[in-house]
Amino acid sequence: MSSVIALDAMGSDKAPKPEIEGALQAARHHNVRVLLVGPEPQLRAELARYPGAHRLPVDIVHASEVIAMDDKVDAIRAKRDSSIRVGLRLVREGRAAGFVTAGNTGAAMATAKVVLGALPGVDRPALAAAFPTVLNTAAILLDVGANVDCTPNNLAQFAVMGDIYCRSIFGMEHPRVGLLSIGEEEGKGNELTREAFQLLKRLPINFIGNVEGRDLYNGHVDVIVADGFVGNVALKTSEGVARLVRAVLKETLKSTITRQVGALLSRNAFSDFKKRLDHTNYGGAPLLGVKGVCIITHGSSNTNAIKNAVRVAAEFAEGKVNETIERELAELTVAVPS
Amino acid sequence: MSSVIALDAMGSDKAPKPEIEGALQAARHHNVRVLLVGPEPQLRAELARYPGAHRLPVDIVHASEVIAMDDKVDAIRAKRDSSIRVGLRLVREGRAAGFVTAGNTGAAMATAKVVLGALPGVDRPALAAAFPTVLNTAAILLDVGANVDCTPNNLAQFAVMGDIYCRSIFGMEHPRVGLLSIGEEEGKGNELTREAFQLLKRLPINFIGNVEGRDLYNGHVDVIVADGFVGNVALKTSEGVARLVRAVLKETLKSTITRQVGALLSRNAFSDFKKRLDHTNYGGAPLLGVKGVCIITHGSSNTNAIKNAVRVAAEFAEGKVNETIERELAELTVAVPS
Repeated sequence: MSSVIALDAMGSDKAPKPEIEGALQAARHHNVRVLLVGPEPQLRAELARYPGAHRLPVDIVHASEVIAMDDKVDAIRAKRDSSIRVGLRLVREGRAAGFVTAGNTGAAMATAKVVLGALPGVDRPALAAAFPTVLNTAAILLDVGANVDCTPNNLAQFAVMGDIYCRSIFGMEHPRVGLLSIGEEEGKGNELTREAFQLLKRLPINFIGNVEGRDLYNGHVDVIVADGFVGNVALKTSEGVARLVRAVLKETLKSTITRQVGALLSRNAFSDFKKRLDHTNYGGAPLLGVKGVCIITHGSSNTNAIKNAVRVAAEFAEGKVNETIERELAELTVAVPS
Repeated sequence: MSSVIALDAMGSDKAPKPEIEGALQAARHHNVRVLLVGPEPQLRAELARYPGAHRLPVDIVHASEVIAMDDKVDAIRAKRDSSIRVGLRLVREGRAAGFVTAGNTGAAMATAKVVLGALPGVDRPALAAAFPTVLNTAAILLDVGANVDCTPNNLAQFAVMGDIYCRSIFGMEHPRVGLLSIGEEEGKGNELTREAFQLLKRLPINFIGNVEGRDLYNGHVDVIVADGFVGNVALKTSEGVARLVRAVLKETLKSTITRQVGALLSRNAFSDFKKRLDHTNYGGAPLLGVKGVCIITHGSSNTNAIKNAVRVAAEFAEGKVNETIERELAELTVAVPS
């Protein structure tokens, strides 16, 4: 049986095009049925432009409102019929196994927490982002923004959820779990990480100790645990560096004719390079620890990113990631009472 | 009159070569006298290899011990005659106006706090790092590691010190000061930053509100305030991304003959690029708020980085940055009691 995934049709910067095309591709290539959530008349008209779309398992569920990227908390709460809220309700009601959105991350997280609620045993759901590494592997960083002030116990739960995510979705057997800190020695870090270190040591995971910001990208660690403030700063800083590198390379490569020729010849290399660093291959950031599957992708998501996110949402549901989180956290509470 | 700067001759990865050459260049091109601190017989022999060195204002001050990059706290404390400690003592005793080291950052910060002490009115000295931006300006991030757990008041003092640093050394008139947070709105962030926001608003600086990790590199802000844990994560994460980019570009550019030709032609562009992103031009990271000038540069510092750090140390002393910090913080305590 195929999984049903609800997809916010109005989330991305170029919505609903990437969403509609991503839904069609996911429906064609993966064993999945997609519910496109958004204003029905508009979506129906757009969908009609794709020949053969009506033969694919893609349906529309109406939602009259759309949350903007810059909507404030009050506006988000007021939109009771937003595509994000309607999509998440489909999951809560069991009509969809998972939800995918490229929309406002804060709104998606807040709404998912309210509509779906946390899994039994989970104190705080956490957003997990995947990074490319020098070794061509992926590393997971969590939390990247769902919780700004965390307790050591929250971080311990993030470690367990990240470990399960890596095992279930990336197929790693014993993911190396590290605690994002400053300095590798056990005593290094701030109050929060020093206390969390003591908890992580006792968990039945492959805890390799403290890691530093540069380890996010060197392939030495698979799951990196941080509070949502620090994780978000690391994520956004990375985006900043990437943009700087792009801007400076572009400028310097343009500045003489010889260089223009050189740049032309190495253009394929750059497109490889872009592909290799492309976050869209990882299928978005799951909000781990909510009742149901909720995956948030970047606002700049293209068709490929949406397709992959829908695929990953189905894998989450089929791999019973949430059931594993619930069971392993329950075992832990018995073994390691906090 | 020229400033006297004590330089740890044994700090960098390739010490003492970059230090000796950096000292000679600084002495030749800037109005500065350099005291090379380290094992005298070794330094004397090395210095003798540079013709004309004896005519430049470069002297040697003996220190029998060297702190290694991986020395632990106990080892650092035990080395009473390390080049770092001896160099800082020269500053305390008034024999040098400033100290520069490319050695162990943790050791240099800890020793500076003990040997020099904090300026009156400064609760916590902070390490300030300079970043290149897309707009070809520099942005200052502080603290990048001197204080892992901070109070809102600490952050307010960092803001004032960063503002003064930018005005004095980078010659900016009204540096834009931002608070590193997640989300730009006033209410966004963690407990620490939300409280700090209220203090920063009341300071007589050009406070532009919250900024995010990506703003470090886009030139929209000149001084970015963070606690030392978050600042250090941002710094190290940036290093990680830069290494990833370098590794992936190198690999993809090598993979076919055409690309090799392309890469050859655009090689000059890459060297421009490297130069533009080169931290060595910024003259190292000053530890702001200690009694005396203490500048810490990267362990990978080359001759140019050392020369610039010595120059900046002299500019700090001559620009009376510390006197300004002391005076402005005192005025502040009167105007805005904490």
